[in-house]
Amino acid sequence: MSRFFNVIPVSDAVAVVNRISPPCSSEMVGLESAAGRILAGPVAADSAVPGFDRSVVDGFAVRAADTAGAGESVPALLQNRGRISMGRQEQDLIIQSGECAYIPTGGVLPAGADAVVMVEYTEEAGDTILIKKTAAHGENVLLHDEDFRKGEVVFSAGRRLTPRDIGVLAAIGCASVPVAHRPVIGIISTGNELVPVSTIPEPGQVRDANAPMIAAYLAEYGCIPRIYGFVRDEPEAFSSVLQRAIPECDVVLLSGGSSKDDRDMTAGTIAAQGEVLVHGIAIAPGKPTIIGRVANKPVFGLPGHPASAFVVLVAIVRPLLDRMLGMEKSLQRTARATLAVNVPSQRGREEYVRVRVENGIATPLFGKSGLLNTLVRSDGLVCIPAGAEGIEQGSTVEVILW
Amino acid sequence: MSRFFNVIPVSDAVAVVNRISPPCSSEMVGLESAAGRILAGPVAADSAVPGFDRSVVDGFAVRAADTAGAGESVPALLQNRGRISMGRQEQDLIIQSGECAYIPTGGVLPAGADAVVMVEYTEEAGDTILIKKTAAHGENVLLHDEDFRKGEVVFSAGRRLTPRDIGVLAAIGCASVPVAHRPVIGIISTGNELVPVSTIPEPGQVRDANAPMIAAYLAEYGCIPRIYGFVRDEPEAFSSVLQRAIPECDVVLLSGGSSKDDRDMTAGTIAAQGEVLVHGIAIAPGKPTIIGRVANKPVFGLPGHPASAFVVLVAIVRPLLDRMLGMEKSLQRTARATLAVNVPSQRGREEYVRVRVENGIATPLFGKSGLLNTLVRSDGLVCIPAGAEGIEQGSTVEVILW
Repeated sequence: MSRFFNVIPVSDAVAVVNRISPPCSSEMVGLESAAGRILAGPVAADSAVPGFDRSVVDGFAVRAADTAGAGESVPALLQNRGRISMGRQEQDLIIQSGECAYIPTGGVLPAGADAVVMVEYTEEAGDTILIKKTAAHGENVLLHDEDFRKGEVVFSAGRRLTPRDIGVLAAIGCASVPVAHRPVIGIISTGNELVPVSTIPEPGQVRDANAPMIAAYLAEYGCIPRIYGFVRDEPEAFSSVLQRAIPECDVVLLSGGSSKDDRDMTAGTIAAQGEVLVHGIAIAPGKPTIIGRVANKPVFGLPGHPASAFVVLVAIVRPLLDRMLGMEKSLQRTARATLAVNVPSQRGREEYVRVRVENGIATPLFGKSGLLNTLVRSDGLVCIPAGAEGIEQGSTVEVILW
Repeated sequence: MSRFFNVIPVSDAVAVVNRISPPCSSEMVGLESAAGRILAGPVAADSAVPGFDRSVVDGFAVRAADTAGAGESVPALLQNRGRISMGRQEQDLIIQSGECAYIPTGGVLPAGADAVVMVEYTEEAGDTILIKKTAAHGENVLLHDEDFRKGEVVFSAGRRLTPRDIGVLAAIGCASVPVAHRPVIGIISTGNELVPVSTIPEPGQVRDANAPMIAAYLAEYGCIPRIYGFVRDEPEAFSSVLQRAIPECDVVLLSGGSSKDDRDMTAGTIAAQGEVLVHGIAIAPGKPTIIGRVANKPVFGLPGHPASAFVVLVAIVRPLLDRMLGMEKSLQRTARATLAVNVPSQRGREEYVRVRVENGIATPLFGKSGLLNTLVRSDGLVCIPAGAEGIEQGSTVEVILW
């Protein structure tokens, strides 16, 4: 292994990621489990919604023409034909001229009627109903198939299903939903310095923060993380865990390898079982990232520091997840903000600066790159493109929200 | 029951909600299950992070003073004392003046040294290392407890734990986390018109869209929804399901009751088992909302139409969830946008208008209130305060994102 690897631009790395991405595969899930999942195919209404002309208020079903000119002082007098029940069509009821019938919200508009007058604008006088308002044709009625036509495609593939979508899917008869298979992503931590969270580290030791952080990120993104624990920096141990993970996962992330020796071992192990495609990306932080492939499964070597690993997850791994999930647009949330100060950067690499956002102002959190506390105190990242020497104070920036 | 109920302002309804909210209770969960949960107490670092002076680069540990004046053409010559291993402290190694040692990223800075020079600025010549750059005291070193001091409170209660937080919690030794208990929310659908999603509705019938939509919303918000299916509009049937749900849930939502008869039955059933506190809120849509209490548990009667039910969830039920979850700030996401057209409203009620947001422009989706398709096509809600007669085109509005 050479001491200094050749870095490639972020766009080239993402192109490699797209090239090696496994295709999106789908599965059917019950509607009750579909929220947050990515729709894998179009869904059409199986019947008209609503399936009948439906009153949207409590009131009296009328022929609009019968109410022409009616008002508070000159009510129209209509004969009450009775009450319409919820949930069924009154087959025998036909509203003739001069007639009306009480209809509850959601009731089926009876034959003959073409509008509903809200109960607030009516008065009962025995069998006669005083209608104190002129109704327009179709007023307070949702017409048959006005919401969705039978066969109409309501949702297209690639959409992340929201709670509202779940309600609409129920309305259009979709009891089970085609969604993208959740990719299983293996996480292997490497490093002699790693100890479990429940251990107080001795000098030289650190707790493995990356694996739980990456797992939580992946789960939130709609994947199934599978943690393989941590292995010492020994090629045999590492190699055997990777061999076990590959058939069990769709993608494997190797976390750790912050030192050159670790990176070399990681790259060597991937090369021995498959191929290393990228070793070094012009991104800061995250330069020593490795992208490879073993048995046609993408394998990433992430930087050891949590903040760097997170940037690489967002900038390099996320496009893979988007593709495997068949997403229409990335789940990544962003917000516009004004940069509080000048942020210098080194031309030739894409730099991700942690920022705090308050009242639309993005303030960079400078400080040593290895700090964890800026992960907690920041709200997101601002990307400085590789071609720029920085971004000027007062510029509008797009903040990639954590 | 009176035909017309008395509506109260939204702020008064929210005050009632806050008054009857059960307190936030907490439970311990493993770190692997903590993402997305709300922290129920402060968490402090159990030890210093880092626990030792740590190199953040691959390079040579030096005494900075030994490199004074060093540069590409006039390197400082230091004697190589060997390599530092990852994961442990080299007890016997003390860097004296004129000496250095190879240190990997993450390695323990040896005694005597106070800086690290990146390997890129060095050259090996046998046992001698050429240092081609002046190092400042502390350069490329993360000091003991520079990130977090032992006992330092890193997270305070009320925070929704992000993936980054999970990483930091691991680093500070928090293997199990105190989080807010997830409220169990019962959902009872009422209505003679309701049929299961898998059934093609007959005229007059509709599928129950509310229960799955509300359940998905609650789950996304961090609650445990419990669906009780739907009951016919018969007081006895309804009463017995409510009686069953109350002891099993922290809160019960009654969905349906779009007609006056249904609402009266809902209010009557709540009153028979407990008390009705609010019947009618000056909100549009959502006016016929009921707030009550049975056996000290909040019970809500939501409007029957999904779009109306969703507005009431966001405006009236959400404050209860925030309180029960002990949240520092609401999870509700918002975004600023410019209103595309004038939006008139009726003074005296808080109106929620569905809008589509594109490139910072919010366009209201007008149309009949009962439509479901606007739930799919819109991105959020704009609230017109009760005191306003509308919002003018070009105004900056805060969009409550769905």
